[in-house]
Amino acid sequence: MLVIGELINGMYKNVGKAIKERNKNVIQRIAKEQIAAGAAMLDVNTGPYEKNPKEAIKWLVESIQEACDIPLALDSTKADVIEEGLKSVRNKAMINSTNADSEKLDILVLMAKKYNASLIGLTMDKKGVPRDKNERVEHAVKIISKCQEVDFNLNDLFLDPIVLPVNVAQAQGEEVLESIREFKFLCDPAPKTVIGLSNVSQGTKMRPLINRIYLVMAITNGLSAAILDPLDKDLMDAAITTELILNKTIYCDSFLEAYKKR
Amino acid sequence: MLVIGELINGMYKNVGKAIKERNKNVIQRIAKEQIAAGAAMLDVNTGPYEKNPKEAIKWLVESIQEACDIPLALDSTKADVIEEGLKSVRNKAMINSTNADSEKLDILVLMAKKYNASLIGLTMDKKGVPRDKNERVEHAVKIISKCQEVDFNLNDLFLDPIVLPVNVAQAQGEEVLESIREFKFLCDPAPKTVIGLSNVSQGTKMRPLINRIYLVMAITNGLSAAILDPLDKDLMDAAITTELILNKTIYCDSFLEAYKKR
Repeated sequence: MLVIGELINGMYKNVGKAIKERNKNVIQRIAKEQIAAGAAMLDVNTGPYEKNPKEAIKWLVESIQEACDIPLALDSTKADVIEEGLKSVRNKAMINSTNADSEKLDILVLMAKKYNASLIGLTMDKKGVPRDKNERVEHAVKIISKCQEVDFNLNDLFLDPIVLPVNVAQAQGEEVLESIREFKFLCDPAPKTVIGLSNVSQGTKMRPLINRIYLVMAITNGLSAAILDPLDKDLMDAAITTELILNKTIYCDSFLEAYKKR
Repeated sequence: MLVIGELINGMYKNVGKAIKERNKNVIQRIAKEQIAAGAAMLDVNTGPYEKNPKEAIKWLVESIQEACDIPLALDSTKADVIEEGLKSVRNKAMINSTNADSEKLDILVLMAKKYNASLIGLTMDKKGVPRDKNERVEHAVKIISKCQEVDFNLNDLFLDPIVLPVNVAQAQGEEVLESIREFKFLCDPAPKTVIGLSNVSQGTKMRPLINRIYLVMAITNGLSAAILDPLDKDLMDAAITTELILNKTIYCDSFLEAYKKR
């Protein structure tokens, strides 16, 4: 499973401050820590309060790339902010994200194709979050159709079934898990899947436990990628062990260390 | 999920000693501890070295029932030992276990029916453990057919896909998980499923972690029951959280404590 580190996000106090002060040492340290913990890609989000997000994402990308050689996921609700990041990335990037609205899809699928980036497609539209697996599949089909229409490589598509907090939308937990399983049958090659993990535990009192268990359940159902906190060692150990049991890595007594060293 | 406590087994040193000395205080204490930790049934096994297992299982059943009111799973490879236990049980019992060999099946399905006990059916025969999901399904069909033939209630059948250690049979992990999912489609009502969890980590250096992750994965695939160590708090918390996410219990901030108090 592709581990996408979530920590470079202006929503977090320390990162928001570092972005505001253009303090690249803080950003570079958080990037390195996430990579050392096992992240294979880093999400980059300027946060909601940045006044000049285009300039900020460019600065973030350049600051990270000065210190690390790792693919980046450019995370913004604004297409022009994402494109500004895409112009600066060195490795194959990921666009985080489009949804199933035609206006967004039209722009972002073509942008992903133009820059040879992978693309997260949220299975929702402006009417809001889906109510069940069937609505998620409907949105997924719309996104896949658009990709096929413009000949975007489906191997680069990551469908996101939209994880919701267990304390307010408890029944959605299983709908999302079954969606991860079902999306795979929608086209060939099967689209990949991704979740923003931490949302499942938003507002609960046992966040690390709930995150950890939900990740294991999602990987069991075939999840391809997750945006998460790689510094949560128990979370990473759970993910590594799940993939071990699914025979994706070879057993050795020190399988946890072996994963991080690879 | 039905939690079946595994600790009253003569294979464990302290229990073996207590059985040998007919020290019922030790047995009763271990029974109570498992119930307090969330077990809803207790496995009872005299262990391999007991010279008089029929007398020993009777003594174990009576000792436990003197202190606790809980259903018991009578665990022996010998049908006459199981029957001796069945004669003494107060609650609805479980037979652990038959396999798919005709000679065993003929005796144990009828015994389960006679004593109104539930029955664990190991999906293997004297040729050894199954090599893949298909062999497991073949054995499962044979066990189900026998139950239908003698009109044994399929709601009382628990199919066991045979968990193997991840360090020696790594590819079997997923075969077992997929078997749990597939067994449900074999008849109506769907047969239940059970695993002897601890076997997955036999001989590994990270036993609690591997047990915990495997249990979450199995519950995600629809597991009905597991024989496990309920005193492993992290393991129980993982099981409780998995069922919470599957919407089988209602969320509250203290969902872990709520489960154990029920």
